Amino acid sequence: MSAYGQSTTMEEPFDDVVAKVRGVLAEQGFGVLTEIDVESVMRKKLGEETGRYLILGACNPGLAFRGLTAEPSLGLLLPCNVIVRSPESGATIVEFIDPMMLVNMSGNEALGPVAREAAQRLSDAVLALGQEVSTKA
Amino acid sequence: MSAYGQSTTMEEPFDDVVAKVRGVLAEQGFGVLTEIDVESVMRKKLGEETGRYLILGACNPGLAFRGLTAEPSLGLLLPCNVIVRSPESGATIVEFIDPMMLVNMSGNEALGPVAREAAQRLSDAVLALGQEVSTKA
Repeated sequence: MSAYGQSTTMEEPFDDVVAKVRGVLAEQGFGVLTEIDVESVMRKKLGEETGRYLILGACNPGLAFRGLTAEPSLGLLLPCNVIVRSPESGATIVEFIDPMMLVNMSGNEALGPVAREAAQRLSDAVLALGQEVSTKA
Repeated sequence: MSAYGQSTTMEEPFDDVVAKVRGVLAEQGFGVLTEIDVESVMRKKLGEETGRYLILGACNPGLAFRGLTAEPSLGLLLPCNVIVRSPESGATIVEFIDPMMLVNMSGNEALGPVAREAAQRLSDAVLALGQEVSTKA
């Protein structure tokens, strides 16, 4: 029942969307530290098709350091994932994790300010994509 | 308040522990798709010291595919993180994410069997490290 992300749908080619996502993340101080090509993994390992699907691991070092200082195990929940996927031709879906789930998962109130700032920055990144934001239920 | 991981402490050098962790994950069908050297990131970006700290992104392709089929947004919560860290000299702490949090976060009951199998496999991996398991509160 918990919301754990924000999503937006863009009517642009997948690779253009990925480039835009990287740009808006960078503007908010998030570098992309990891990238998983889910389509490639599933095709190679299982022979299954997922459509285009990337998992980008975004990290704002300053926020991550504050979070890790408050909760050394926080690395279990980092980096902040952003997914870009095209389940059907035409539309590209972008989803951003909600960092408030970090507080919900850990129950550590000291993470509150860090998670709120991360949530604000990721919301701003979504808005910068020029789209309406919908919260995933 | 939610538990979100299992941890164990090993009295072995960091690099030896990382190799063992990769081995027990592989035995359970989890490949390590991503690796973040937190110590290196924080030193380069902020000039801060964390001690040795790795975030390994582990993925069992079959389980991930079943999970993504049940919940296309699940990539926001993948891969399953395992962290290896040495906050003090001597001991190396290994922590594994609890995949049951995927169900808790999503509220999608269809993820239950997948998450339970992932949880069992990661628990077996922890046990294979030859250590007592403690659940992080």
